[in-house]
Amino acid sequence: MIIIMKPNASKEAIRGVTCQIEAKGLQVHLSEGHEVTIVGVVGDKSLLHGINFEIADGVDKVVAVTESYKLANRKFHPEASTVLVGNTSIGPGSLTIMAGPCAVESREQLLETAVAVKKAGANFLRGGAYKPRTSPYSFQGLEEEGLRYMKEAREATGLAVVCEVTSQHAIETAVKYVDMLQIGARNMQNFELLKEAGKARVPVLLKRGLSATIDEWLNAAEYIMSEGNERVVLCERGIRTYETSTRNTLDISAVPVLRSKSHLPVIVDPSHATGVRAYVPPLAKSAVAAGADGLMIEVHPDPARALSDGPQSLTFGQFEQLCASLRPYARLEGRKF
Amino acid sequence: MIIIMKPNASKEAIRGVTCQIEAKGLQVHLSEGHEVTIVGVVGDKSLLHGINFEIADGVDKVVAVTESYKLANRKFHPEASTVLVGNTSIGPGSLTIMAGPCAVESREQLLETAVAVKKAGANFLRGGAYKPRTSPYSFQGLEEEGLRYMKEAREATGLAVVCEVTSQHAIETAVKYVDMLQIGARNMQNFELLKEAGKARVPVLLKRGLSATIDEWLNAAEYIMSEGNERVVLCERGIRTYETSTRNTLDISAVPVLRSKSHLPVIVDPSHATGVRAYVPPLAKSAVAAGADGLMIEVHPDPARALSDGPQSLTFGQFEQLCASLRPYARLEGRKF
Amino acid sequence: MIIIMKPNASKEAIRGVTCQIEAKGLQVHLSEGHEVTIVGVVGDKSLLHGINFEIADGVDKVVAVTESYKLANRKFHPEASTVLVGNTSIGPGSLTIMAGPCAVESREQLLETAVAVKKAGANFLRGGAYKPRTSPYSFQGLEEEGLRYMKEAREATGLAVVCEVTSQHAIETAVKYVDMLQIGARNMQNFELLKEAGKARVPVLLKRGLSATIDEWLNAAEYIMSEGNERVVLCERGIRTYETSTRNTLDISAVPVLRSKSHLPVIVDPSHATGVRAYVPPLAKSAVAAGADGLMIEVHPDPARALSDGPQSLTFGQFEQLCASLRPYARLEGRKF
Amino acid sequence: MIIIMKPNASKEAIRGVTCQIEAKGLQVHLSEGHEVTIVGVVGDKSLLHGINFEIADGVDKVVAVTESYKLANRKFHPEASTVLVGNTSIGPGSLTIMAGPCAVESREQLLETAVAVKKAGANFLRGGAYKPRTSPYSFQGLEEEGLRYMKEAREATGLAVVCEVTSQHAIETAVKYVDMLQIGARNMQNFELLKEAGKARVPVLLKRGLSATIDEWLNAAEYIMSEGNERVVLCERGIRTYETSTRNTLDISAVPVLRSKSHLPVIVDPSHATGVRAYVPPLAKSAVAAGADGLMIEVHPDPARALSDGPQSLTFGQFEQLCASLRPYARLEGRKF
Repeated sequence: MIIIMKPNASKEAIRGVTCQIEAKGLQVHLSEGHEVTIVGVVGDKSLLHGINFEIADGVDKVVAVTESYKLANRKFHPEASTVLVGNTSIGPGSLTIMAGPCAVESREQLLETAVAVKKAGANFLRGGAYKPRTSPYSFQGLEEEGLRYMKEAREATGLAVVCEVTSQHAIETAVKYVDMLQIGARNMQNFELLKEAGKARVPVLLKRGLSATIDEWLNAAEYIMSEGNERVVLCERGIRTYETSTRNTLDISAVPVLRSKSHLPVIVDPSHATGVRAYVPPLAKSAVAAGADGLMIEVHPDPARALSDGPQSLTFGQFEQLCASLRPYARLEGRKF
Repeated sequence: MIIIMKPNASKEAIRGVTCQIEAKGLQVHLSEGHEVTIVGVVGDKSLLHGINFEIADGVDKVVAVTESYKLANRKFHPEASTVLVGNTSIGPGSLTIMAGPCAVESREQLLETAVAVKKAGANFLRGGAYKPRTSPYSFQGLEEEGLRYMKEAREATGLAVVCEVTSQHAIETAVKYVDMLQIGARNMQNFELLKEAGKARVPVLLKRGLSATIDEWLNAAEYIMSEGNERVVLCERGIRTYETSTRNTLDISAVPVLRSKSHLPVIVDPSHATGVRAYVPPLAKSAVAAGADGLMIEVHPDPARALSDGPQSLTFGQFEQLCASLRPYARLEGRKF
Repeated sequence: MIIIMKPNASKEAIRGVTCQIEAKGLQVHLSEGHEVTIVGVVGDKSLLHGINFEIADGVDKVVAVTESYKLANRKFHPEASTVLVGNTSIGPGSLTIMAGPCAVESREQLLETAVAVKKAGANFLRGGAYKPRTSPYSFQGLEEEGLRYMKEAREATGLAVVCEVTSQHAIETAVKYVDMLQIGARNMQNFELLKEAGKARVPVLLKRGLSATIDEWLNAAEYIMSEGNERVVLCERGIRTYETSTRNTLDISAVPVLRSKSHLPVIVDPSHATGVRAYVPPLAKSAVAAGADGLMIEVHPDPARALSDGPQSLTFGQFEQLCASLRPYARLEGRKF
Repeated sequence: MIIIMKPNASKEAIRGVTCQIEAKGLQVHLSEGHEVTIVGVVGDKSLLHGINFEIADGVDKVVAVTESYKLANRKFHPEASTVLVGNTSIGPGSLTIMAGPCAVESREQLLETAVAVKKAGANFLRGGAYKPRTSPYSFQGLEEEGLRYMKEAREATGLAVVCEVTSQHAIETAVKYVDMLQIGARNMQNFELLKEAGKARVPVLLKRGLSATIDEWLNAAEYIMSEGNERVVLCERGIRTYETSTRNTLDISAVPVLRSKSHLPVIVDPSHATGVRAYVPPLAKSAVAAGADGLMIEVHPDPARALSDGPQSLTFGQFEQLCASLRPYARLEGRKF
């Protein structure tokens, strides 16, 4: 931690700050410039918990030197992680494709989709049973019935299945049916849910919050990991900006930024990022070229009739074509697919 | 609903759209321009649920005409609402001041603060017992113990008490101790929590999400109200923007915008909006002048030692001074305080 | 300047950094923590110009300690400035009201408006003669003809007049007719224009860029001031965010933030900030209560027929009513109006 | 244009709106729903210029149906354009690489860089002679001297040269030395400069404004094109968001969005978008995979000593490696490079 004093800070003010630090057994390094004095703190800054130097006399600003997330931090885990899910794994050397409908609408819809996406090359089936919708009057999901269809689809196709959970109750139910839990964007800072997911001992796909910084996102991962569950995969799904020609703005830079800050695998969801079907294929390729470990793509037997997010869903034919077009990109990136 | 066709949309495409609408028993109004054809839909658009015209052949875009929230919508409730909480009420004609520490840290801290803010003029005590913190390693709150102190402070001072809840379990516990539940910014789209708050039959203070639009916010209120709990108060607490000189950007325009779109009371939290103590008083006055029904202000006996959000907390003396300076503004706005 | 090294930075890397600093005659203060080493630089950091420590071996990040703007910085000019414009002045102790049409459309329109706003209490007439419009097919302004009407209106009413300039040529023409030049939001970082305005020796109203940070804004003021023209007034007019219920988001916090960072006067333009007439009066009051030195308000004889920004313009009657309602707020703030 | 009336709009209000439309010789289509009446306008909406229906009695909102840009609009030019610059061309079928230093610093620096980027595969040399810098105290460029070096580098290597212009004077000078003018992000809505660039009859590279929407960007292109200069190339260079781990946020979706809205070529600048050297190669590949027609990359002989933007500049070796790694991606996209 570094404390920057105001230009006119008195000696008493500086002493006030340094005394508080030394009283906790930490060391102080003072740089007295011609304009400004800087107080460097050496030692375990958690000992300073509960002292708010920002408002101490004469202080201009406080600069953090180290990140608050540890388990998710690449500085302490230099090797990229691979997360095992069922029989498959997400991480370096392979390209994971998760595909399926936004919402599970019926047994037929789901099974039909599972077969189609498996055939095209997906290794995960996605499908929402608990749907967080902006309006209470929109379709809210089939809940446990939807999960049963997910399990059935897994048995029929061998695909791993991933499903969003939105409450402790949903987690308790979902672990009986699915291979991987998803925490959605709106719940990225629902810390109670993160803790429950951490206790669940099932791999977790953690979507980025609508306007979460990358640091907040990694801290959210830390919530899950600090409960003992280190099998976390991050999913970039677009952030909120002023631009309205896409539903969100895909922050493609998040892929290399996460690579440098964290060891966790990263996948990209171009469907939610854009909200527009025609933009999904170019952005899917783009994500692979940027180094993503996988993709999550919405696919529906009849997008024009989908109960949720139809406009961004691919048909079976479009998804098959996309997978074919992705193969050479995966190869260039040294990823099996 | 209005459907705007592409310039080159074929007659078949237009017929495709209009047939689907008429098949549901709705009426179509066609405007054929020299460049573009527009399809107006007359009738209950919920009948069109599950048809995604955005991706129908020849469609350029779909424009919604009516808002999806009804109970929170001023169009259907032209009178401004007053929300009763305990012996007090929030709404036109009065200025409600909620004050207290970010986090309940101890019995002494809370009781001392309660007495001080009551004396200065507050009518609500705020205090966090369940703290949603960015990092899992930060102080997470005293939980039920904190709630007990809140109740004790209420009994000692007569202040109404409001406390954030972050899970169904917290709601079940909190209703035994407090007058009003708070849903925090990070949980504004935790729809399961909103539904539980709706069932709780206790007034709810709904903070705006970090990057929620006003429409999403009113839809979140609708989740609570549609469960039968219409006692909802909205709290603007700053939104996320690119500007970093304040913690968030106080969207002061939200006050008049909400006035025109909704009948629910609106209060403003300048403490979280700015994160900087010195900016709280001018923005508190500003909020009153903009027409807010109340304020939420963080106050702490010793901000320099606060376990959470110290830099934005006022001392007792600063809070007293603020209340004094607010009185003439309240009077100008015709509000009792 | 502070340089934070990576946890694993080698001794050679640290020496590499410190040698470059010392070679320029500056002093180094080293804080060697158990995780991280911090290099503090003492002395005139402009001597380090052209050394990019960010990419030196072993460096994690570089933190600036002092602001790059000096003339606009309150640290070096602790007194709030008053800017003289013609016979009037902008600054502490008075509330300046600039009012008038977005665009000068005709002699009659402008003179009629000037008389009306003068009567209601304005001390400046605003009016655009050079209109920066999003589309090249929109009305672009009357140019010099418009400036002539501005001068005529000044002579008829005694109001000071302010007009936006969009090129060096416009500046050369405008200085013959008006009391104050305005640099619009879209040109806030048109540095050539800022330099010309700095040479013009006429007071300048500098609007905040659409997505300018407060630091960038003060650096833009510095461009004008460093050419020798210190008569700069800042105008907050809303920033671009994701929220669409207003045209821009009025950053009301900018008023107290600028107060603490700069000595220059600050006014607020609620008309451009919201784009909606009904929101202008509450936000005008709000700005005064937040401590603004003045307001810029769009007024038009017939807003429904205005060639530019009609939806946000007040009628004469509405403006008169607004001025009346502002008086007690100005009084509370100790401002003459 | 569509005008949506308020739920309670009176018959007189509706008639008021329709009369004004019909008085201009346009046709009205009325959709009277059970809640809301919608007024569709058929015909040339430019005839309604100067009527602000937004504030007419009983009007809720006005929705535009057609874009205001025409020459840049793909609806009216379905074929993708190729822009000729000197002996080379930018558009479908080729991948254009523009490379060079942020600022021209000396003859040696520029010539050395030109030879290196040419050898690696670039076909354009970029280099700033007029530098728009946030602070007036930063290096502002060599101006005409810099342009002379650009011309010399062109003659020495055969590379086309592109240089930013920041004023009418700079345009007049630059056209004597360079093949293509660049309008920078800060000047994207400097409409006077756009008009001058339109008159210059030299190809123009138009960078996206820091927070410009895609529609505003295409309107800025329209300013250039409507002066008779249709040789415009668009350059995505990152937009301003709340995320701070990169300098800007690369809006990779802009590539497919522009493809669908415009026929103009699109290139991507990952150097300015990220501000971090390590992120440039993955994002360069990503841009090619998303369908960009080219890239602009900052390259410097000694980035650690660059006078501008060193931290985001590649060394010669890094650039060579990047070009090599891009070739197979260009091939997959069917682009010559």
